[in-house]
Amino acid sequence: MSARKPVYYGEYLQLERLLGAQKPLSGRGGRPAHDEMLFIVTHQAYELWFKQILHELDAVLEAFSGKTVPENRIGSAVAKLARVVEIQKLLIDQLRVLETMTPLDFLDFRDALTPASGFQSFQFRLIELKLGLVDSRRARYEETPYFKRLTPAHRRLVLAAGRADSLFALVERWLERTPFTRLGGFDFWREYRKAVTAMLDRDEKIIRANPALAADGRARELETLAATRASFDSLLDPERHALLVRAGSWRLSHAATLSALLIQLYRDRPILHEPFRLLEKLAEVDEQFALWRTRHAIMVHRMIGTKIGTGGSSGHQYLMKAAASHRVFGDLFNLSTFLIPRSSLPKLPSGVSRALGFAHEAA
Amino acid sequence: MSARKPVYYGEYLQLERLLGAQKPLSGRGGRPAHDEMLFIVTHQAYELWFKQILHELDAVLEAFSGKTVPENRIGSAVAKLARVVEIQKLLIDQLRVLETMTPLDFLDFRDALTPASGFQSFQFRLIELKLGLVDSRRARYEETPYFKRLTPAHRRLVLAAGRADSLFALVERWLERTPFTRLGGFDFWREYRKAVTAMLDRDEKIIRANPALAADGRARELETLAATRASFDSLLDPERHALLVRAGSWRLSHAATLSALLIQLYRDRPILHEPFRLLEKLAEVDEQFALWRTRHAIMVHRMIGTKIGTGGSSGHQYLMKAAASHRVFGDLFNLSTFLIPRSSLPKLPSGVSRALGFAHEAA
Amino acid sequence: MSARKPVYYGEYLQLERLLGAQKPLSGRGGRPAHDEMLFIVTHQAYELWFKQILHELDAVLEAFSGKTVPENRIGSAVAKLARVVEIQKLLIDQLRVLETMTPLDFLDFRDALTPASGFQSFQFRLIELKLGLVDSRRARYEETPYFKRLTPAHRRLVLAAGRADSLFALVERWLERTPFTRLGGFDFWREYRKAVTAMLDRDEKIIRANPALAADGRARELETLAATRASFDSLLDPERHALLVRAGSWRLSHAATLSALLIQLYRDRPILHEPFRLLEKLAEVDEQFALWRTRHAIMVHRMIGTKIGTGGSSGHQYLMKAAASHRVFGDLFNLSTFLIPRSSLPKLPSGVSRALGFAHEAA
Amino acid sequence: MSARKPVYYGEYLQLERLLGAQKPLSGRGGRPAHDEMLFIVTHQAYELWFKQILHELDAVLEAFSGKTVPENRIGSAVAKLARVVEIQKLLIDQLRVLETMTPLDFLDFRDALTPASGFQSFQFRLIELKLGLVDSRRARYEETPYFKRLTPAHRRLVLAAGRADSLFALVERWLERTPFTRLGGFDFWREYRKAVTAMLDRDEKIIRANPALAADGRARELETLAATRASFDSLLDPERHALLVRAGSWRLSHAATLSALLIQLYRDRPILHEPFRLLEKLAEVDEQFALWRTRHAIMVHRMIGTKIGTGGSSGHQYLMKAAASHRVFGDLFNLSTFLIPRSSLPKLPSGVSRALGFAHEAA
Repeated sequence: MSARKPVYYGEYLQLERLLGAQKPLSGRGGRPAHDEMLFIVTHQAYELWFKQILHELDAVLEAFSGKTVPENRIGSAVAKLARVVEIQKLLIDQLRVLETMTPLDFLDFRDALTPASGFQSFQFRLIELKLGLVDSRRARYEETPYFKRLTPAHRRLVLAAGRADSLFALVERWLERTPFTRLGGFDFWREYRKAVTAMLDRDEKIIRANPALAADGRARELETLAATRASFDSLLDPERHALLVRAGSWRLSHAATLSALLIQLYRDRPILHEPFRLLEKLAEVDEQFALWRTRHAIMVHRMIGTKIGTGGSSGHQYLMKAAASHRVFGDLFNLSTFLIPRSSLPKLPSGVSRALGFAHEAA
Repeated sequence: MSARKPVYYGEYLQLERLLGAQKPLSGRGGRPAHDEMLFIVTHQAYELWFKQILHELDAVLEAFSGKTVPENRIGSAVAKLARVVEIQKLLIDQLRVLETMTPLDFLDFRDALTPASGFQSFQFRLIELKLGLVDSRRARYEETPYFKRLTPAHRRLVLAAGRADSLFALVERWLERTPFTRLGGFDFWREYRKAVTAMLDRDEKIIRANPALAADGRARELETLAATRASFDSLLDPERHALLVRAGSWRLSHAATLSALLIQLYRDRPILHEPFRLLEKLAEVDEQFALWRTRHAIMVHRMIGTKIGTGGSSGHQYLMKAAASHRVFGDLFNLSTFLIPRSSLPKLPSGVSRALGFAHEAA
Repeated sequence: MSARKPVYYGEYLQLERLLGAQKPLSGRGGRPAHDEMLFIVTHQAYELWFKQILHELDAVLEAFSGKTVPENRIGSAVAKLARVVEIQKLLIDQLRVLETMTPLDFLDFRDALTPASGFQSFQFRLIELKLGLVDSRRARYEETPYFKRLTPAHRRLVLAAGRADSLFALVERWLERTPFTRLGGFDFWREYRKAVTAMLDRDEKIIRANPALAADGRARELETLAATRASFDSLLDPERHALLVRAGSWRLSHAATLSALLIQLYRDRPILHEPFRLLEKLAEVDEQFALWRTRHAIMVHRMIGTKIGTGGSSGHQYLMKAAASHRVFGDLFNLSTFLIPRSSLPKLPSGVSRALGFAHEAA
Repeated sequence: MSARKPVYYGEYLQLERLLGAQKPLSGRGGRPAHDEMLFIVTHQAYELWFKQILHELDAVLEAFSGKTVPENRIGSAVAKLARVVEIQKLLIDQLRVLETMTPLDFLDFRDALTPASGFQSFQFRLIELKLGLVDSRRARYEETPYFKRLTPAHRRLVLAAGRADSLFALVERWLERTPFTRLGGFDFWREYRKAVTAMLDRDEKIIRANPALAADGRARELETLAATRASFDSLLDPERHALLVRAGSWRLSHAATLSALLIQLYRDRPILHEPFRLLEKLAEVDEQFALWRTRHAIMVHRMIGTKIGTGGSSGHQYLMKAAASHRVFGDLFNLSTFLIPRSSLPKLPSGVSRALGFAHEAA
């Protein structure tokens, strides 16, 4: 419908370039291994999707890098993260295709790849850095042969991502700035503490009065209750929270943690819809990477076994541990510890409630 | 572990080439549309997987192109087709990612693509031709602007695939050659016809004797029974079968149809294990393409709507019809019409049964 | 934590009842068929999920049945429909499990089930009625033996659902009531028509001025353009729209259609976030049922073949046609025809824009 | 088609019983929580599928419990395990549906369920026991309140499963009996050891001769090589293998391990097709349960958080560890350590090769 020259599918997608980029090694000194093509194509598909994930993450980082984050950009960030989650699911699905290769078929060309096998992707590293994964590997990565063999441009990208604000850092700051916890003289956290105390006192009364409980059962329930009280105390006390952060068992700052909790508790108010969905999507991104790591660890185990009897811990066990511990937004899961039933929630004063609503309702 | 020079991930996967092949058009004359990258990456991922499907199909075609097909090559073909099925599932899953783009976001760059939007892939065309899709579009395809804009190399590939034996043709010939229907003087089909006749006679007796049936109910059941008899007659009579083929309601030749049925019925005998799995995988490949076409048709409907009121039938309705009719191995589904319960199956003489078994059992 | 008596897993889930409800028929008169258990369990799992879908649909119907629909109930309806979509995906996934049964294994007990095989589920019928599926089968269903054999309670449920307002009807009425198309003297549709006309005029000019177009190419492009103009005219003219509705090629009323379009075009304004997601979820529910019908049709084809040569059209072909035509919210897909690029959209006057925003922005 | 009385869908599936078995607790003392129905239906669907898994496992256990396992029963066991794998994938997919419930919605009825929440399923326990999961929990399970509250019949089932041969034990014994390692005077393992030694000697030569290696690089590579030699020595020496078993780092007996390895290496010979697929399916069953445990652990984390600051390790962390360690057929993954490239494999003498083939080839 326009006067510009027509675009054709093959050129638009750069098919000659794309479909000419598969260079199996196994055929060079002998018989090509049929399955090496699968190995290459699968990893190239991963890299294409990593590029797309970075494209989305960069847009989200940009949206959150300003002094304030306009509401419509939150909605747009949610859509981008939702897309990242769908891509992550696809990355996991792709393992099913790779797993149609048996370990014996992999052996047909595995040696020719040394030391390139595995996921030594600078784009994956970029994703981890941009999300905000904190681990001791950063230094190590820069000393690896893989890093040293990157093109200068790619190396610069990795170094820059390591220095820039991660999504974790930007979201944390955005949460810290959220104005909704002290609106018009209403101190939400005082009310929340009252509600929690009332709830736990009621529970304690029930335990003490329950004739069906044996003495040791009662003691055990009271102990659990005391531990729950201590948890809530840590949550509400900035200094005790800081101890948890220092000990590594919590990562989000105190102010950000409280904002995230408020968003979860009052997600029904219009202005918190998108912030709530944002937190949900961040948790999903985190969950999908944990699942990806688990699936990948199991596949590695199946493909190359384990160095049993060699004294060292096996690659597979290391990977399984990483799946459990390399989390960025794990605190968004931990937060569920502090939800209280809607029936116990402090009622918002009508002024506050209105401030969280739509213009046309307030009119 | 070897003396050759080490291989690195980035070079091995040709990452510079691969990750430099995304050229959005929307940014040229103005603001880039964020979602165009998704459009490009998704279609490139499709093309990578199409290349892999062709790699597998070519190996299967090669295995079946000889005078005889050694048994271990059947097993290997099954594995390759199983991989194709897993890739097809992935192709369908990828639509979920593409569908994170809304129709309005697509509009942001849709015009810039004219007339390249859609799947005008020469690799997809190759897949259809190599599988053996017969439709009136072949001629048309070669007259399309898309074909004319292909590189000479790609054009030659399409023309060659159109002339070569398709997987359908090779499998049909392989089935026709299967020696198991007349082993050592045993005429399987005579026994099968006897078994079918006995089964249907018994059914007829039950219907006629059933006091619970009203007269019209009985008439209806007898009519259905007569139709079933006619179906079996067509199956077993080469001339009536030929009529069905000419009318387009059946595609596999008479001899191939009978072999495929025998494989289904006696799949428990060792030598028929892999042939049975081969037929299953061919049916699955066919099913997955039908599902792909359906999903694609629905996505097109959602993305660009329908030209309501313009007189012509809409693209979406055409695509839905194609999903139902563009089948290659539909006869493998139709075959179920002619299965008879194991309890009614003719017993194989022990010599025949042994011939279908393992060496060490026969010893 | 409470004084009431403890609840145990087995009683809570009524496991004795649930796990005692599988009654295979194949073992009664002879050898049990191993796979009949799969057939029963799969269908029972379907019925459990149908019950859950009805639980969600009933809550959504209730939310939309009042004079007005409070905004937070829209968000809650979206969550319930999102759950329905996840369940629908599971229903499709379940076919993969059922398909581990081969047609020959099905034959081992298929006769024992006559005439119960297939999906004669009153709950599925309820779902169709509650969504608002319109087809000629309703009358027929009430004449089927399946309907006659329902318990009186189940029969009453089906009849009541047929008489009550469907989700389609309630959503249509809610869309018709949407106040946003004429806000404060601003006539959105006049502006939209102007924008469309300007866009199409510009396209026409480009076509007429394009020197690269041959005469017949130009004629064809002008014809398409004229058809597009006619489509937009139908959309904006209530009387021509009514003709489309009468002809069966559109279903949503004129007012509801325009509201749905407006929601799509201005989904970025806060107050339209949830309405937009509602329309998206309704479209997804519709899409998933279309996919379900397609998958089911293919499975039936694979399991029982087709009555080739019997004169009648086969069950499988009927089912494929139903998959394409039994749509409830197809108009939400058709709507994409009328989207115009954001760059051509009429700007909302700031008063209107504010009215679609948050209280705290308006303050 | 028969004279017996017709069967109807509703009765056949026991729909009244099935659809009357959902008894939410949250409505009893107040407002029903909408999402409790989802909680019940999901768990009931799990229990239905657990019943089906047990139905399949029981058939497989029966097939392997005889003195010998006829070849066609191996094929049938493969099909049943393939079905179990499909069901396991469905169980994981079902979590997606359950996760449409937010933690706050769960809180609306969570307290009413105490102490029934979670998976206290006796059927899941049966599955673990029948597969052969070894852990210290068995004793503990029988002391739990859940066990004590089981019906006497269910309790008997659990105790009996604990005493009976597990699938692991039966498969191990079947592998130990496999006759193919010493056929007609051919000692496979002597030949395999020779091949391994030759392969490792060649590797050592390359390392020592490689001028590109620095001294420390060479030392490291030689160390790895020595460890690999030690691994192979452990594999081939029954006494060193027994040490690994006692230390808990290997589970399959020496004879069974060698048979499983042989099946992997010569899977191309016809008689090993089905045994190979059996091992593959057992590994997949194991993998799917590991994935299920991971997904479940993450969901629990998301739903109820973690008892941070209470001193004890959280439920979520315990579950993640269980996902990594509760494996039954992990040795089938470990085996990949000992695969050697096809090009290095000892050639089978033609008599041995024939013995692993089909009757009609041997003729």
